[in-house]
Amino acid sequence: MSAIRVVSVGLGPIGVSVAKQLVERPAFTIVGAVDIDPLKRDLDLGDLIGVTPSRALKRGSARRLGVKVGADAPTIIKATKPDVVVLCTSSSIKGVMPQLETILRTRTPIVSTTEELSYPGYTHPRQARQIDAWARKARVAVLSTGVNPGFAMDALPIALTAVCERVDHISVQRVQDARIRRLPFQQKIGAGLTTKQFQRRVEDGSVRHVGLTESIAMIADAVGWNLSRITDDIQPKLATVTISGEFLAVDPGYVCGIVQDGIGYHGRTPVITLHMEAYLGAPESYDAVQIEGHPNLSMKIAGGIHGDVATASIVVNSISKVLGAAPGLHTMRDLPLPSYFGGSLTSGS
Amino acid sequence: MSAIRVVSVGLGPIGVSVAKQLVERPAFTIVGAVDIDPLKRDLDLGDLIGVTPSRALKRGSARRLGVKVGADAPTIIKATKPDVVVLCTSSSIKGVMPQLETILRTRTPIVSTTEELSYPGYTHPRQARQIDAWARKARVAVLSTGVNPGFAMDALPIALTAVCERVDHISVQRVQDARIRRLPFQQKIGAGLTTKQFQRRVEDGSVRHVGLTESIAMIADAVGWNLSRITDDIQPKLATVTISGEFLAVDPGYVCGIVQDGIGYHGRTPVITLHMEAYLGAPESYDAVQIEGHPNLSMKIAGGIHGDVATASIVVNSISKVLGAAPGLHTMRDLPLPSYFGGSLTSGS
Repeated sequence: MSAIRVVSVGLGPIGVSVAKQLVERPAFTIVGAVDIDPLKRDLDLGDLIGVTPSRALKRGSARRLGVKVGADAPTIIKATKPDVVVLCTSSSIKGVMPQLETILRTRTPIVSTTEELSYPGYTHPRQARQIDAWARKARVAVLSTGVNPGFAMDALPIALTAVCERVDHISVQRVQDARIRRLPFQQKIGAGLTTKQFQRRVEDGSVRHVGLTESIAMIADAVGWNLSRITDDIQPKLATVTISGEFLAVDPGYVCGIVQDGIGYHGRTPVITLHMEAYLGAPESYDAVQIEGHPNLSMKIAGGIHGDVATASIVVNSISKVLGAAPGLHTMRDLPLPSYFGGSLTSGS
Repeated sequence: MSAIRVVSVGLGPIGVSVAKQLVERPAFTIVGAVDIDPLKRDLDLGDLIGVTPSRALKRGSARRLGVKVGADAPTIIKATKPDVVVLCTSSSIKGVMPQLETILRTRTPIVSTTEELSYPGYTHPRQARQIDAWARKARVAVLSTGVNPGFAMDALPIALTAVCERVDHISVQRVQDARIRRLPFQQKIGAGLTTKQFQRRVEDGSVRHVGLTESIAMIADAVGWNLSRITDDIQPKLATVTISGEFLAVDPGYVCGIVQDGIGYHGRTPVITLHMEAYLGAPESYDAVQIEGHPNLSMKIAGGIHGDVATASIVVNSISKVLGAAPGLHTMRDLPLPSYFGGSLTSGS
């Protein structure tokens, strides 16, 4: 089987993490890379992502992948004719619309990390229909995924309902010690801000986890519930002692992270409750799901699912599913069972 | 949306449990029922399964469903033209081949509980190809599922690998206190036998959990591993004190259940290890998955997933996926994300 040829668009922390995995797994070859940052322009991708792929070594080049970072996605895509584009540029569906349109004009399937695109039918129905139409016209599939939204607070609890005779309530908790996460994530959760600064950032939308509403909508559709409304509430978590991480130190009284609650209501009854805590110094990271119904189910992943690694992984692992899917906009709900893909036991370990 | 019309074939404990759920969920109507047992012949299905459906009540009949248990599946199917047949007759793929052929001649999709059919490509490749050919010719989909095989020791651990960058080893444990299970299950695990009787029953194949090899093959294919061999070892669990359940009491020294280990090897290295304990008096029931790789993952469902309820549930929940699937033989690996289906929040609770 020949390797799947990929163009990476967007080389921020997640895009770099995805590109590293693509380089290291035998099933893939990166044939092009794109970023808008002029400082990254014309760099060799291997230098940018800091990997020494065995295949590059074999070609006698220590780190060079032979892929230069370009500025214009359609030019690179037309020149390299990849099997798929991985798009890691923005959380905002409106932000990626022009990129999606341009890429889909080249008739290339897309796997994206855009949180709002993970399940856009509820929050952005017009954009969802438009993207679906572009994808169908191009006869290719589009998916947005990640660990959250995309897995921990939607696909995983949905899968657990499959063994239930009756489901009355679904709750999910994701608690993460943000000290192990990258700096942009720590900034996204407001670490180091005053309460007042935090509130301003919440109001302008720069401090928040994007995806709770999308996850709730996905769960509700999966189990066949008509929700009356979905709420998404953000609160600061304040440090009570000085917390020091690799990138930041936070003094007592300052914000060390975020507590976010998404609730889906059936009438006035909360039937889906998603609770997220991400802050520097959380004593225990974990993911947990409780399903009330028959039978009741209580699942816990001790230590949690690491956000950055897991998002890059599920993007890479989903590529083969997207290549096998019917044309159109897909979500984790309608694609085949998620699974690892593209490594090998001998070379991987 | 009009209800999905179902014929239930096989009315042992699991078939009855499935039929009960079908009667109680608004999305389904049972239009026919079949069992080979002459004692069940011509009984009203409502009397046999012991339910008082609200819809039957509305028709002024306390328990009668108006569905008599018949003896011949094709006759009933031709008379009622169901959307799907639920087949709960045997663990053995060879045992159900004639039934599958007959039902598929009527061009009706099938959801089955036949353990060996859950992932038959490794253990029964010839039968798998034959069933796939029959299903494609009939232009309908066929699936076999259940909690195990079908979910706890295959689909669920497979889904968890989706967040991994690298997978080196997958282990799954399923420990169940068999006191809460039905009598045929307790007999299937050898409860009450002497060690010698147990060994004879293991040798003649009547004492064993069917499905570990199928689950291992499904996991290996999902993550792309070529296994060198799969082993399946059965040991008795002996009572150390007298254990009393609803159906059976077991004295010290007698068998109270089963310990079964399935191992998938890559070369000489065990890379998939499934460990099952099902015995009267197990102190804690649980399902657990550990994935070694990057990141490591450790998941536990405290209290476990109840076997009988969960198998009936996942069969009923999978019906809509099978109706939406392409013609051919499917497995839980290639169908869309498993999920609850067919109840409603108001009527269900």
